[in-house]
Amino acid sequence: MNKHKPILSFASDNNSGASPEIMAALAEANRGHAVGYGDDPWTASACARFKEEFGPSAETFFVWNGTGANVLALSLLCGPGSAALCSECAHIFIDEAGAPEAAGIKSLPLPSSPEGKLLPEGLKKGLEDQGNVHKARPACVSISEPTELGAVYSLAEIRELAAIAHGAGLPFHMDGARLANAAVVLGLPFRAFTVDAGVDILSFGGTKNGLLCGEAVVTFRPELAAAAPYLRKARLQLASKMRFISAQYEAYLEGGLWRRNAENSNREAKRLAARLGEIPGVELLSEPETNAVFARIPRAAAERLRKDFFFYDWENGLVRWMTSFDTSDEDVDRFAAALRAAMGSAHGAAMGAE
Amino acid sequence: MNKHKPILSFASDNNSGASPEIMAALAEANRGHAVGYGDDPWTASACARFKEEFGPSAETFFVWNGTGANVLALSLLCGPGSAALCSECAHIFIDEAGAPEAAGIKSLPLPSSPEGKLLPEGLKKGLEDQGNVHKARPACVSISEPTELGAVYSLAEIRELAAIAHGAGLPFHMDGARLANAAVVLGLPFRAFTVDAGVDILSFGGTKNGLLCGEAVVTFRPELAAAAPYLRKARLQLASKMRFISAQYEAYLEGGLWRRNAENSNREAKRLAARLGEIPGVELLSEPETNAVFARIPRAAAERLRKDFFFYDWENGLVRWMTSFDTSDEDVDRFAAALRAAMGSAHGAAMGAE
Amino acid sequence: MNKHKPILSFASDNNSGASPEIMAALAEANRGHAVGYGDDPWTASACARFKEEFGPSAETFFVWNGTGANVLALSLLCGPGSAALCSECAHIFIDEAGAPEAAGIKSLPLPSSPEGKLLPEGLKKGLEDQGNVHKARPACVSISEPTELGAVYSLAEIRELAAIAHGAGLPFHMDGARLANAAVVLGLPFRAFTVDAGVDILSFGGTKNGLLCGEAVVTFRPELAAAAPYLRKARLQLASKMRFISAQYEAYLEGGLWRRNAENSNREAKRLAARLGEIPGVELLSEPETNAVFARIPRAAAERLRKDFFFYDWENGLVRWMTSFDTSDEDVDRFAAALRAAMGSAHGAAMGAE
Amino acid sequence: MNKHKPILSFASDNNSGASPEIMAALAEANRGHAVGYGDDPWTASACARFKEEFGPSAETFFVWNGTGANVLALSLLCGPGSAALCSECAHIFIDEAGAPEAAGIKSLPLPSSPEGKLLPEGLKKGLEDQGNVHKARPACVSISEPTELGAVYSLAEIRELAAIAHGAGLPFHMDGARLANAAVVLGLPFRAFTVDAGVDILSFGGTKNGLLCGEAVVTFRPELAAAAPYLRKARLQLASKMRFISAQYEAYLEGGLWRRNAENSNREAKRLAARLGEIPGVELLSEPETNAVFARIPRAAAERLRKDFFFYDWENGLVRWMTSFDTSDEDVDRFAAALRAAMGSAHGAAMGAE
Repeated sequence: MNKHKPILSFASDNNSGASPEIMAALAEANRGHAVGYGDDPWTASACARFKEEFGPSAETFFVWNGTGANVLALSLLCGPGSAALCSECAHIFIDEAGAPEAAGIKSLPLPSSPEGKLLPEGLKKGLEDQGNVHKARPACVSISEPTELGAVYSLAEIRELAAIAHGAGLPFHMDGARLANAAVVLGLPFRAFTVDAGVDILSFGGTKNGLLCGEAVVTFRPELAAAAPYLRKARLQLASKMRFISAQYEAYLEGGLWRRNAENSNREAKRLAARLGEIPGVELLSEPETNAVFARIPRAAAERLRKDFFFYDWENGLVRWMTSFDTSDEDVDRFAAALRAAMGSAHGAAMGAE
Repeated sequence: MNKHKPILSFASDNNSGASPEIMAALAEANRGHAVGYGDDPWTASACARFKEEFGPSAETFFVWNGTGANVLALSLLCGPGSAALCSECAHIFIDEAGAPEAAGIKSLPLPSSPEGKLLPEGLKKGLEDQGNVHKARPACVSISEPTELGAVYSLAEIRELAAIAHGAGLPFHMDGARLANAAVVLGLPFRAFTVDAGVDILSFGGTKNGLLCGEAVVTFRPELAAAAPYLRKARLQLASKMRFISAQYEAYLEGGLWRRNAENSNREAKRLAARLGEIPGVELLSEPETNAVFARIPRAAAERLRKDFFFYDWENGLVRWMTSFDTSDEDVDRFAAALRAAMGSAHGAAMGAE
Repeated sequence: MNKHKPILSFASDNNSGASPEIMAALAEANRGHAVGYGDDPWTASACARFKEEFGPSAETFFVWNGTGANVLALSLLCGPGSAALCSECAHIFIDEAGAPEAAGIKSLPLPSSPEGKLLPEGLKKGLEDQGNVHKARPACVSISEPTELGAVYSLAEIRELAAIAHGAGLPFHMDGARLANAAVVLGLPFRAFTVDAGVDILSFGGTKNGLLCGEAVVTFRPELAAAAPYLRKARLQLASKMRFISAQYEAYLEGGLWRRNAENSNREAKRLAARLGEIPGVELLSEPETNAVFARIPRAAAERLRKDFFFYDWENGLVRWMTSFDTSDEDVDRFAAALRAAMGSAHGAAMGAE
Repeated sequence: MNKHKPILSFASDNNSGASPEIMAALAEANRGHAVGYGDDPWTASACARFKEEFGPSAETFFVWNGTGANVLALSLLCGPGSAALCSECAHIFIDEAGAPEAAGIKSLPLPSSPEGKLLPEGLKKGLEDQGNVHKARPACVSISEPTELGAVYSLAEIRELAAIAHGAGLPFHMDGARLANAAVVLGLPFRAFTVDAGVDILSFGGTKNGLLCGEAVVTFRPELAAAAPYLRKARLQLASKMRFISAQYEAYLEGGLWRRNAENSNREAKRLAARLGEIPGVELLSEPETNAVFARIPRAAAERLRKDFFFYDWENGLVRWMTSFDTSDEDVDRFAAALRAAMGSAHGAAMGAE
């Protein structure tokens, strides 16, 4: 065993593994047989746990991954060729590989803020096409909390967008792939900035915050809950041994594991930003709100750093680094030191080239 | 912990949990960080392992579940509105909840044998519509090995159907959700009755034979392998922490775990059939070839038995019982005893009713 | 001009051209400009005419062709992967080239009568899968009036099937590609055996009965009418110069053109059947109810006849001949004579071969 | 008859009716019977005529409308969830009501010129995502000739974009809903700026230039032609009485009807622009290249003018007026006079408000 050498990564929070509590929950769930497809006690418990968290209207449908959660949620809201109005930075428009479109749904980008937030004015503009049969019919509004750039919508911002959507007769979807990181920033219980703020259906993520696999779609309207079981199967998201997803979510919600994990990644992102701020030539896009740090560094430095660390280029010459539930102070300091060295070399190389 | 009482089930082989070897592999894979979406050493190892098993043309794409594997495979073969020719008992026609159709693919049932096998004559009939623009265009042929009724196509049968498909210019897909159970019956290496027999693309299952989650699509043609990564994402089947699927498959293929597990479930199904044969009034559909037992029992006996055991009704008044990798002789004997008691009571009840 | 030699065909009622009244209506509609996409006076008039025919709940959406009408209607009723329950002979299952499936809808065949009618018992069997997430969710019931084999559901039969559908909470669709032929047989106004008998949405055809092009989807529920304009465009069925379809339908409904045309084709089918019955060796499937005649003739005779007449083979060794709005007694007699001659030759050839 | 009062419209070129030559061709085609679905002599002639126009590689598939032509063409090029790269002004992104997305295809907008042209740099940027499984896979490049804003790509511009597409391994689609108007401007035969310039598949329009209905998809690659018949049916575009579309296209191509019609509409647009230029307060967006005039006028003037003329608002406070094959000098002068009057009143109203 132990044949593959572990690495440390700041490429994405999904480069981390699973929390020890999650592994323990899996082991506990692996006792005996259980009826498949969700008719098991672990799933019943986990769904009850979501009701505690989100209130009695919450019906929970476990799925495999974030793309699956988003496409299932949008499929419940949007008919063929209709549009999910979203930020021009939205994951569903940019990074889902056309998966919404493969399901017949047009993700329609609207003018947004620099940090990736859908703006009230942008949304209103998108709604002007309502009633025009030549345009894709607006069928829902979708935001990501936090955004792709790690920014957190305030409670007031969420309420305003939800009110605009509802005022136009449209349901309001929230992509919460990293919802825990936002909850920690807002200092609010989940329900306060989701269902209580006007969210009708939620993609609730855990994989990026210490789960092994599995996400959840949480509906807050009876008609969505009624349709979800069939569409979950048709959208390829029905797990036969569902207890192994449910058990993870029970462990995630109980005892505040979600909070501890998110607090750690948010805190380490701040530490990372602070360390980077001390390195000459490293330009931070902004102070991180959650666990993503966007920065601009010389290409030569990026290349040198990549010899030891894998990470992604973002748009406009930016790179993205993310912290995880298990990132430590030492990890951050080591990474910052490596970047400082790479910058120095790059600087030297640049100097030498002169 | 340990709050949920484990049960013993003969309802389906997906009612069982995960093999200890699989749980160990998950724990081993949970060390440090790894690049997401398959660019990790566990996935590289597991894919190499599939090449050993299936030959150098095999390219492996891990997915979440069996429906996902089948729909991804069919999506690689079938354009919008075209048809996957299959048995009228095929999982893709009967039990995938319209998931192929949701992906634009018509699963087209053809006349089949009583044990669910697509027949050469049935296939030829289905191919008569080739070239007729008013009919759904035949785009592939798909069989399940073993069939939904647990029967195993012989090597000659597979070769004949593949030859008919290829003769008509169509690729040949095999749904191998329980492929290990068939391999044990055939006594052949996987490749002998798949790629070497004419299979172009394979849904390779493990969840029903001791895995926690995850299946694989294995392609044997370069053009399918080239398209698969994009469609896997668009069909919602791309795992971010893929190492946790790959590691299971490495453990599954190494050291013959797949074989030991399948041998056990096949053997216990035979034991179950033998025990049932001794109970007056229980009518077996046929001698089980793999791990499914179909029988006809009085409704009253079924109701009584259901107080202790969950299981599914099949068509035509049949019930289905399945054994698993972890079913023991004692489990079988206890179940048979319970059925005998239920039959006795039912008999008594029926007597009393007279 | 006149460069293409006209033929006489019994292959299908869509081999005929357009009624003179239809051509006159097109010429009349071709005066000046009109707002596109249906906001023109011809469309307003035609829709009002449908309301007279079908009652105040009828909202009419003109489309291009029968496949378009059926797929738009089913798209209004069925979500992704859900099922339209139909006869195993239904056009939507057999002859639409997978077009419903390309739109994500599974056409699910149920046991039917020899003349192609969905049977109450067959429908009830299909409804047994309601609530089972592993099966394609039944989302509507669809029948063809008349059936693919030219049989006409009685008013009582339609009411019974509609009641079963509604009892199960499902809407009821009627494919009326040849509705006029059925109306003539039933001797009822359109509304009596459609909306008043429980039909929720109707594909209303005219092309097979003397129109140049264009069909209509007629909805009888407000929520279907609300969604139809958007889906009509997304399903590629929105005509820019819609007046040229609407004007045809106004001419079709006014003055009983639909009735005269259908009466002629029905009557000539009866004449054809009578003539064929006099020819030794020609086996009629049944007395024609509408305008299709199914018969069994020796292959050699069919081949000889095909030198002069194009027609289609049906299933099970049958051939199909259809009469049209413009078929004359002389046409029928000439065709019967040609068949008699072909049968004689075939008989002679068969004799000689002995 | 003659019950609907004809109007004169500058709203769109599809507000006009059909050319007399087209009506004559329909009448000529309405003689006797003809085999359905395209196996008739009119369709054979028309397809041969396209080969004369576009060269021997051209295979022609008649469809119903422009949306149908575009979605069929894109369906031949793009698998589920893959992307058609296009201008951010493209009809397929903006004005097809999500029809490409309803067919599983993502229309992906790229940075474009003010007159709606896809720019080489914009296209190269869009191609950067090739090979990234998280992005919608670029599957084709699509341009409109002329653009939505009436601008005409030069031959060199088309060649450059086609070469970039081909260099990236992508096929090149041209939406030619108004191709005749572009051909007249370029002074080139159709083939010179389509197939000979690198176009692989073409949506060839006629409805906006004097046809009653019907468009064509023209393929220039054998594999596209092979797949087209099946997809045409699955995409609801197969006409049963196809001769009535084919006959129109034969008349359109023969004797230069397409050219005379397009020359007229282009010329009258120039006349309209000249007249508008003489009216104080009317701001033309640019000199019209084809038959669309975009202008900015005070809202009050637009409202007044709308009492007599229907027309569309465009984006950014612009209005669009279009000329047609049958627009006369007198029509233009009358419209210009009406606008001048509306401007005067508006000016007066505005003056009075001061």
